[in-house]
Amino acid sequence: MQNLYADLFLQKMSENPEGSLNLRLYHCIRMAILENNFLPNSQLPASRCLGKEMKISRNTVIAVYEQLMIEGYIYMKKGSGTFVAQTLPDPYFNPELLSNPKEPNLENKTHVQSYLSERAEDLLKHAFSAKTQWGAFMPGVPDVMAFPQRRFSQIQTQIGKRPSPDLLTYCNHQGGVPSLKCALVDHLKLSRMITCTEKQILVTEGTHQAIDIITKMLCDVGDTVWIEDPGYWGIRNVLRINGVRIIPIEVDDEGMIIPKLKDGETPPKLIVVTPSHQYPLGAVMSLARRRQLLAFAAYYQAWIIEDDYDSEFRFSGNPIPALQSLEADAPVIYVGTFSKTIYPALRISYLVLPQKLTKVFKTAHAELYRGGRLLIQATLAQFIEKGYYAAHVRAMRLRYDKRRLLLKRLISEQLGEDFINAYTNNAGLHLIINL
Amino acid sequence: MQNLYADLFLQKMSENPEGSLNLRLYHCIRMAILENNFLPNSQLPASRCLGKEMKISRNTVIAVYEQLMIEGYIYMKKGSGTFVAQTLPDPYFNPELLSNPKEPNLENKTHVQSYLSERAEDLLKHAFSAKTQWGAFMPGVPDVMAFPQRRFSQIQTQIGKRPSPDLLTYCNHQGGVPSLKCALVDHLKLSRMITCTEKQILVTEGTHQAIDIITKMLCDVGDTVWIEDPGYWGIRNVLRINGVRIIPIEVDDEGMIIPKLKDGETPPKLIVVTPSHQYPLGAVMSLARRRQLLAFAAYYQAWIIEDDYDSEFRFSGNPIPALQSLEADAPVIYVGTFSKTIYPALRISYLVLPQKLTKVFKTAHAELYRGGRLLIQATLAQFIEKGYYAAHVRAMRLRYDKRRLLLKRLISEQLGEDFINAYTNNAGLHLIINL
Repeated sequence: MQNLYADLFLQKMSENPEGSLNLRLYHCIRMAILENNFLPNSQLPASRCLGKEMKISRNTVIAVYEQLMIEGYIYMKKGSGTFVAQTLPDPYFNPELLSNPKEPNLENKTHVQSYLSERAEDLLKHAFSAKTQWGAFMPGVPDVMAFPQRRFSQIQTQIGKRPSPDLLTYCNHQGGVPSLKCALVDHLKLSRMITCTEKQILVTEGTHQAIDIITKMLCDVGDTVWIEDPGYWGIRNVLRINGVRIIPIEVDDEGMIIPKLKDGETPPKLIVVTPSHQYPLGAVMSLARRRQLLAFAAYYQAWIIEDDYDSEFRFSGNPIPALQSLEADAPVIYVGTFSKTIYPALRISYLVLPQKLTKVFKTAHAELYRGGRLLIQATLAQFIEKGYYAAHVRAMRLRYDKRRLLLKRLISEQLGEDFINAYTNNAGLHLIINL
Repeated sequence: MQNLYADLFLQKMSENPEGSLNLRLYHCIRMAILENNFLPNSQLPASRCLGKEMKISRNTVIAVYEQLMIEGYIYMKKGSGTFVAQTLPDPYFNPELLSNPKEPNLENKTHVQSYLSERAEDLLKHAFSAKTQWGAFMPGVPDVMAFPQRRFSQIQTQIGKRPSPDLLTYCNHQGGVPSLKCALVDHLKLSRMITCTEKQILVTEGTHQAIDIITKMLCDVGDTVWIEDPGYWGIRNVLRINGVRIIPIEVDDEGMIIPKLKDGETPPKLIVVTPSHQYPLGAVMSLARRRQLLAFAAYYQAWIIEDDYDSEFRFSGNPIPALQSLEADAPVIYVGTFSKTIYPALRISYLVLPQKLTKVFKTAHAELYRGGRLLIQATLAQFIEKGYYAAHVRAMRLRYDKRRLLLKRLISEQLGEDFINAYTNNAGLHLIINL
């Protein structure tokens, strides 16, 4: 019997000649147990005997036995030796499982093929994100190499030297580092005419998370959401996975054309718009359309998501004030981001919430995403406070404007004036061509 | 008429004495238009007249008119003057909206009160995250002040000096920075006996996002998921918001007690376990139970989530190999995290996926979360490669073991031996007391 063990182990070890002797012996005994070569409670050869028969040191065998014991494969009884543990689970002795263990696999063949959920299959059918995310002519990707990374990194190093423990642990229910929320309140007042308090700010992990929490908090599965058509694929996919009914609404050169509801038609719970610079066509939503949208939302108790993804990059005139600022207590959730002005991998966006949503959104945020990343938020706050952010945005506006004018000139000269789309002149990181 | 305008503006400006003259005039004309004090297309006084009547400089009036024109509130006709734009939206002339604009608010009073979705209300009812996330006796929160933050920060500074653009833009479909995935493959082989390739690794934004993507990819609304009872509230809430049916399964000192399915009972799509150190009771799942769980999952085509949140902190014996490593091609998704070994705010966790799930999960990840944060991933990779990570984990293991023994001794001396729970001796960041 003892000889048989040694033979089995030697054979198994010769099949796997990699690794130290110790590790190989460990693996082969472990696999022999897992493959049910031994009955539970059967005795293993004593370390001295096994070592002798396998022509290896007894200490090697002892070390391997000890490891296997710790892991629960074998047990030792004082004075009687080493035994294989009862590691076979009950279901092996359950006739239901033993009689025909492969059957369900055969019966449910379609199930095996579509092991993904229906919502996952649906998502993958609409997958749209590009494999390359950097280079010329990538829509919505800023020139990240122009960002003063060294300056940002200096602030980060300074903060990273002796951070407070609050910056290293999970986020509490404040919705972001206080200094960043303060900096945002000031920045929004100056640049977007938004009057809000720190309490209304919720810092999120990019715009996708912003849309995700809004959808979950305000819509159930099957609820209706209006989006602009055409619009950003990313928002559509976040809505899609959350099970809402997506209705694409046409846009023209004044932005979304607010339709009249037919009798019995369900009003939307959410309306997602890009008023500063329609994505991707570039129209700025007219004031009349803005007021119409606000009146519609108030009447039907819908919420408006104002996705202000690149309003910083206007090339003529001053920015149009945000939709959120047009009425006090408007049912508007403003979504801002640093993905276009700093760089996308930063993954910092933020919401300006209506008063009555602030507390519940912050609680839900902690529950769903368990925030954190507070060092980078503190770094960004200083970067804004010290004026570097505003300076960078100004510099980038000039740089993009030059490129835009050059590209427009080349297109006009080489292809003809008609190729330039009329309402893409003033804003944003992309330019529309008529084909 | 002209006089009336000037009077109206002066009165409105005296009500809001804050800000520059320029800004105050701008606000009062804008509000007058928004509050419908003027009919569309009515003429505004010429800048010269208005300046004279209000006793302010003409240039101020011109500047304000220009700003309002850019923003679409007024328009100018050459030779005829300045006019109020048509900014009133159609619905104001829609009898349906005008007749009784407040009515829906009154009728749907309950709707107004519960403006949140049902899933949000449900989530908030089960909200459990603590407002304080740092200090002694916080379960699951590591001693973040012991982390060699300065060393980590040095690496970060070095990488931050001249980063490649790939690290600053959106994540592509690789599921993480290659160097971090490599470092993880090596680390997992040594510490958890997991043999996997880079392809199987998907870096996520914390464990909540890891559970979120698994649930969405493998479960539809209404599908059954088994979790340990008691278990971690955070995972329960991520499952809850995704609309699955949560069945809590009892645990004993061998981990989850795998129940037998009754006739007609729906098998789970997912089974979430913490085999290394049951959260919160601390049991290590026995080998028999592990094999039973694997057999059950294979038979019913369920997926197992192995949440290995703090297996690094074992205080006796070697770590038990991961469930994932017990069988080739096991239907196990391993979830690891740096929240406990580095610090929670880092927000880096990762999945080790079965081969057939890798591609679809990475595509879905880019669609749903639009990854990024690649500088910090590159930093972490170097921190691991240079051996600092392993050294820190060893140091923390000693430190936590000392604290654990001290606390146990104090409890035994002051309260009595019976207060110490038997199966909480070997692992983890918390200690169970019998009350």
